[in-house]
Amino acid sequence: MDTVTIFAPATIANLGPGFDVLGLAVTGKGDVVEARKTVAPGVTIEAISGDGGRLPRDPVKNTAGVAAGEALKLARERGGVALKLRKDMPLGSGLGSSAASAAAAAWAVAQLYGISEKEALLPACLAAEAAVSGYHADNVGPSLLGGLVLISSYHPLQIQTLPTPPDLHLVLVTPAYEVPTAQARAVVPKQIPLEKVIANSGQLSAMLAASFKGDTAAFGRAVVDAIIEPARAHLIPGFQQVKEAALRAGAYGCSISGAGPTVFAVTDSLEAGQAIGAAMQEAFQEAGLSSTVNVALVDAAGARQL
Amino acid sequence: MDTVTIFAPATIANLGPGFDVLGLAVTGKGDVVEARKTVAPGVTIEAISGDGGRLPRDPVKNTAGVAAGEALKLARERGGVALKLRKDMPLGSGLGSSAASAAAAAWAVAQLYGISEKEALLPACLAAEAAVSGYHADNVGPSLLGGLVLISSYHPLQIQTLPTPPDLHLVLVTPAYEVPTAQARAVVPKQIPLEKVIANSGQLSAMLAASFKGDTAAFGRAVVDAIIEPARAHLIPGFQQVKEAALRAGAYGCSISGAGPTVFAVTDSLEAGQAIGAAMQEAFQEAGLSSTVNVALVDAAGARQL
Repeated sequence: MDTVTIFAPATIANLGPGFDVLGLAVTGKGDVVEARKTVAPGVTIEAISGDGGRLPRDPVKNTAGVAAGEALKLARERGGVALKLRKDMPLGSGLGSSAASAAAAAWAVAQLYGISEKEALLPACLAAEAAVSGYHADNVGPSLLGGLVLISSYHPLQIQTLPTPPDLHLVLVTPAYEVPTAQARAVVPKQIPLEKVIANSGQLSAMLAASFKGDTAAFGRAVVDAIIEPARAHLIPGFQQVKEAALRAGAYGCSISGAGPTVFAVTDSLEAGQAIGAAMQEAFQEAGLSSTVNVALVDAAGARQL
Repeated sequence: MDTVTIFAPATIANLGPGFDVLGLAVTGKGDVVEARKTVAPGVTIEAISGDGGRLPRDPVKNTAGVAAGEALKLARERGGVALKLRKDMPLGSGLGSSAASAAAAAWAVAQLYGISEKEALLPACLAAEAAVSGYHADNVGPSLLGGLVLISSYHPLQIQTLPTPPDLHLVLVTPAYEVPTAQARAVVPKQIPLEKVIANSGQLSAMLAASFKGDTAAFGRAVVDAIIEPARAHLIPGFQQVKEAALRAGAYGCSISGAGPTVFAVTDSLEAGQAIGAAMQEAFQEAGLSSTVNVALVDAAGARQL
């Protein structure tokens, strides 16, 4: 194989109480990487589309480039790779855009150079994330592996895929507003009161139990975050109103996706999701922001060949 | 029914990363309450044995008395209860002695006065714990309900029983040493660095996943606590050596049971448990403390009539 085209899905990180620990791959958005084997070693990025000209083509400054470079180091063969990157989701929206590029690029190199285990590529994807937004796997993990992913340890890296309720639907509402990831990280508290740790531990445990029981309502009701959401809510105009609108419209739970500004809500059908999405969109409108709605399912496959 | 005899088991609270959130009922030790219906309202404690004369017979100062009094309020009938309490485990050992008394007394009143739902008695047991050692349900929950219990929320109280691996064995080593619960609580940090919150969240999630997968090794390996154990370890002479001895002898994990000084280790057979227990006992001996070893299973029944 000399060329390959790989898709990697959008992801919801910071799933309620699961900061840096849980992430979920969702359908409907993602990045596409076309990769071609080259005789010359190293990574070149030949083209990027869908980014409005904002992403660097220098491979050491681009998550796709970094991930591809790290993946090449894992391959025993000589040679390099030339990439074309197509962004099919908005940048800085809280849906793991940089992670999807990294996962797609790493898996593309794997396909070209005979690496068959996705898990082996995680460190490559993590290095890419670290280069742009910090050392965290709750976007790259699910974008690469698919489904609901638990990162139970970073040192050493321990990661597993968890079951999800079959009727789990995620309502993703993305306002036309950008929260800089750096600012969203800066407001995260460095010291957490014990009672909030206990509260989040309890909800995180409830979420895990619901994932194994296949209970969408319990899964959604456990989306209660006493630590990160309160610190970031003010960065998204209208967030409280949007959340209240989602819950009033019947969502089981609602919080910020990743660093925002996308807000996600949990429900169990497309119809309910559309009604919840409309209510959330209206609330953003009242805060002066237009927004797009996507009622997504779990993307169980993760990075894959198109 | 005018008299009833109820047993409630010992429990491991603060199960590794699950401070105030997870507790486990274990076989081999527990408290027994004999209760008799009285025409006169209220609670009297007629006798206490096995406590070396240390527990108060004033029902408002005794967890069995408080729990019985609260349980009586739930009953629609008039009348009271007279209790005889037999302590079958050491006080202040970190095995939920006060909780077992509360659970046994509350369930005794329930049997006498026609309350059939154990869950209804949880607030009564919590009130009893709050009177002596703080508002936490990770001992009373499992002692009452049996098995591995998750308290996912305290406000409102949300509690559920989780599955456990069938071959889960707990090695409980109790040194002849008393850690005052008040001191053990006092050293618990009030503010926790975010990286430790993430570390514990990950291990707690791994523990939950292992409980549903029935994976004893993974369950034990997730007994890694970055928050409470480091703060309390110095209160138990020889703790680090005991823990290292347990792990060297093949335990999957090891930490402090409740507020200590009992140290628990996780393994998957009686034979392995006995070898691990002997190694831990020897390490305590080197620290100058004699100790008792109990290789326990999960007590799935909780409070029950004898």
